[in-house]
Amino acid sequence: MKNFISVDDVTNMDALVQTALKYKASPFTERTLGKDKRIGCLFFNPSMRTRLSTQIAAQNLGMEAIVLNVGQEGWTLEFEEGVIMNGTSVEHIKDAAPVLGSYFDMLGVRTFPSLKDREEDYSEKYLHQFIKYAGVPIISLESATLHPLQSLADIITIEEYLQFNNKEHLHSLLKSIFNEAGEDKNSNKIKVVLSWAPHVKPLPQCVANSFSQWMNAWGKAEFVITHPAGYQLDESFTKGATIITNQDEALKNADFVYVKNWSSYHDYGKILCNDECWMLTNEKLTVTNNAKVMHCLPVRRNVELSDEILDGPNSIVTQQAANRVWSAQAVLSEILETSNYNIKHKGDKSQ
Amino acid sequence: MKNFISVDDVTNMDALVQTALKYKASPFTERTLGKDKRIGCLFFNPSMRTRLSTQIAAQNLGMEAIVLNVGQEGWTLEFEEGVIMNGTSVEHIKDAAPVLGSYFDMLGVRTFPSLKDREEDYSEKYLHQFIKYAGVPIISLESATLHPLQSLADIITIEEYLQFNNKEHLHSLLKSIFNEAGEDKNSNKIKVVLSWAPHVKPLPQCVANSFSQWMNAWGKAEFVITHPAGYQLDESFTKGATIITNQDEALKNADFVYVKNWSSYHDYGKILCNDECWMLTNEKLTVTNNAKVMHCLPVRRNVELSDEILDGPNSIVTQQAANRVWSAQAVLSEILETSNYNIKHKGDKSQ
Amino acid sequence: MKNFISVDDVTNMDALVQTALKYKASPFTERTLGKDKRIGCLFFNPSMRTRLSTQIAAQNLGMEAIVLNVGQEGWTLEFEEGVIMNGTSVEHIKDAAPVLGSYFDMLGVRTFPSLKDREEDYSEKYLHQFIKYAGVPIISLESATLHPLQSLADIITIEEYLQFNNKEHLHSLLKSIFNEAGEDKNSNKIKVVLSWAPHVKPLPQCVANSFSQWMNAWGKAEFVITHPAGYQLDESFTKGATIITNQDEALKNADFVYVKNWSSYHDYGKILCNDECWMLTNEKLTVTNNAKVMHCLPVRRNVELSDEILDGPNSIVTQQAANRVWSAQAVLSEILETSNYNIKHKGDKSQ
Repeated sequence: MKNFISVDDVTNMDALVQTALKYKASPFTERTLGKDKRIGCLFFNPSMRTRLSTQIAAQNLGMEAIVLNVGQEGWTLEFEEGVIMNGTSVEHIKDAAPVLGSYFDMLGVRTFPSLKDREEDYSEKYLHQFIKYAGVPIISLESATLHPLQSLADIITIEEYLQFNNKEHLHSLLKSIFNEAGEDKNSNKIKVVLSWAPHVKPLPQCVANSFSQWMNAWGKAEFVITHPAGYQLDESFTKGATIITNQDEALKNADFVYVKNWSSYHDYGKILCNDECWMLTNEKLTVTNNAKVMHCLPVRRNVELSDEILDGPNSIVTQQAANRVWSAQAVLSEILETSNYNIKHKGDKSQ
Repeated sequence: MKNFISVDDVTNMDALVQTALKYKASPFTERTLGKDKRIGCLFFNPSMRTRLSTQIAAQNLGMEAIVLNVGQEGWTLEFEEGVIMNGTSVEHIKDAAPVLGSYFDMLGVRTFPSLKDREEDYSEKYLHQFIKYAGVPIISLESATLHPLQSLADIITIEEYLQFNNKEHLHSLLKSIFNEAGEDKNSNKIKVVLSWAPHVKPLPQCVANSFSQWMNAWGKAEFVITHPAGYQLDESFTKGATIITNQDEALKNADFVYVKNWSSYHDYGKILCNDECWMLTNEKLTVTNNAKVMHCLPVRRNVELSDEILDGPNSIVTQQAANRVWSAQAVLSEILETSNYNIKHKGDKSQ
Repeated sequence: MKNFISVDDVTNMDALVQTALKYKASPFTERTLGKDKRIGCLFFNPSMRTRLSTQIAAQNLGMEAIVLNVGQEGWTLEFEEGVIMNGTSVEHIKDAAPVLGSYFDMLGVRTFPSLKDREEDYSEKYLHQFIKYAGVPIISLESATLHPLQSLADIITIEEYLQFNNKEHLHSLLKSIFNEAGEDKNSNKIKVVLSWAPHVKPLPQCVANSFSQWMNAWGKAEFVITHPAGYQLDESFTKGATIITNQDEALKNADFVYVKNWSSYHDYGKILCNDECWMLTNEKLTVTNNAKVMHCLPVRRNVELSDEILDGPNSIVTQQAANRVWSAQAVLSEILETSNYNIKHKGDKSQ
């Protein structure tokens, strides 16, 4: 793995998930893999879980992690080419990135969309300029349109649950009993539903985009997305999923419900509806297959998700957030291994 | 020791102080006790000494310490139960704490009182919710009403001074000569005075509360509190101390004078008096037993304490602040030992 | 080396540069020199390269580095003696510094000039009070008037370039051919030009002062400073350099051009001219000896330096910034060695 900015950087998702679960069982088995290696974690906006889980993952591998809150501890970076820098931006990415690349063996970068200019946000300019100019592997710590470390943690959480409960097997058995003809291509698959939720602020689409992209690539679930009209996500991420605007219909027989708000992609960055009936409740869950409820956190209680769900037995949001460490650790260790392989086989540092 | 939020969590204060002094003599004797362990230090308001001394104490024990400035690097947490989170708070403690508990082996938490709602401040809601939801040991890095790591450092400083000077012995000898009848129950004890000082801003009562609580539990001193009328502290902390509103009277024969401002407890959070005659000076010290002067820092020079005292031979404020490291190291190592004991005897991590 | 605040703290510049280049070749050869040692890095204003390079240098030597952003994570310090602290400053340097000195084996301090009161800025009060009160070695991470870690990195960059290209030798040969008489004392030296550049904000003189001071002490170059009238630097730093207000004249036959803006020293802190013709371009470079172009970064593109230069083959600004790590590592290791020597020969910690 050279960079990690989307599911497309993953060559073997099953192996990556198994690596993560191996670390979960034994966090310190590769305590020296990152010896004398260093990751710089650049945050253009605040983060708690992503920052902490990445720092911890790095430490578990014996790497040194240094966090830089670019906005607070640094200054405004310029990303436009050819500009006369007589305004508020203090340094160009073309100058900052190669220096950071000389200081670190890899860089984690957290950016955020403007939610004003879709084309610019979806170009992922920030991330691509870091890749272009830093000369070291770039790991997305959430970008304008995607959040791959979160999505990997999501897949880990589902896989872990299935393995532990051997649910996949059970599920396929039950379904085959009721569906002898076996015409349904999803008949022996679990059902995962991504369900839009209300929120008080316009949020990025990145978690929803990214989860869709990873679910489609994972391929082990019947994947349904449900949202009010006008909240269609970018097709390049959702293609392959069933999209339904009737939430009750979508939730039927679901094994996992991933609850998440996002602002409109088509009427970009807008809140089109905040219908509170879209908030998941225990009552809505009754039509599911006693579904486990997921959310990437932070969650607005009693706006996105009810207390009764978050405090009840169906919520697995804590386990999901805890798995962020093993997601990050699996990715960092793959990048370290690629880098070590390159050093061994090319005789010098992969830059 | 499971948590450390007040003196009540200490089973053997003498042993704890001796552990601290052992670390002061040899900081790195337990370099591997905290191997593969991690403390998360959450600051809801700025801190210099507490933050640095805790980080250093953790490092001395081989632990990894990660600091999170919650206000600046994170977001507003919600502590009310059942609330509809459609306002400014982004995440509920019920969701944040268990995730932090999954990332860290213990959490240090620094909170601050509002100084507006006494009942709320004195409920220590923040700290108790962390204890309730995090599932790992919680260490107070100063709370709304107490500052136990400071108080332990204060006791260490006094004990160290007595041991070094063998003053306790000398003092009791001198006193017994002049007081043959021996009626005074404090006759062979040193005298420690907590003396209120003026300040320009309303400050919490926590350092004064906590010092009172620890002095009473320590029991090796005659303990006197002096302050202008209206500045009585919460009796649950001061009970057992002699309270005098005449400062000159209180200072007589004092061996240690702890200078500290606090706002009113009864007329909650108010500044009732800023009489500058309460500032300690060398002249006031003449009635003491050449008392050593303490302050938790930061100190407003020439408001709380005069330059002549802070720059003179009676001040031990630097040693006192330096002892914060050994205070924290003693507490962290007790918690690590309890946790290791639990792992050994229960076969898994104490959560 | 006891402190590191200017070139005057360097006893053997050649040895220091060679140490830096040794670390560049093998960063981890002294992985245990700083074992159980700790540096506190205090930033009174934001920094990226200085902060990261110092942290990395410390880690390379096995030291623990703790960063404190004093303004954001701490509070306002008072530096005036004898003041009644009833205003906005919370703690006096006389109280803060000795505590920090008790926590750390050395302190890095980054301060900034007001650009309003020249006498105060040039007194370097902040730095000198830290030296006076902390009791441990103080390392300037840029001060009001100087930036010695930058200047050392600048010298390293030039030396490295000369060694790699054996340019010194070649240059002296070429010069001797065209200048048989050999009257010019600079005849066999390379030529380094410090060239003022426009900027949108008034900047400190520290980088320019410091580079001048180090170039003069280094003594291996013909050193020329060029700037518009009114931008003369403090003679105590520039004495020995040739000062020319005609940039084209100054650039003739230059081997290195160091581009940097500074505000006026004489009309203190003022911007007297922002003539954009002072911006270095490829055309201006034609009169040089195909000069390498340096800048300490961050650089305002197309204001201080044109894109064509920064993106072209003459720019060595990335290498120069990368060398900040080896500059810091050489300085930290000299201080550690002095400190270890003192411990060995005096039997206790050098305070």
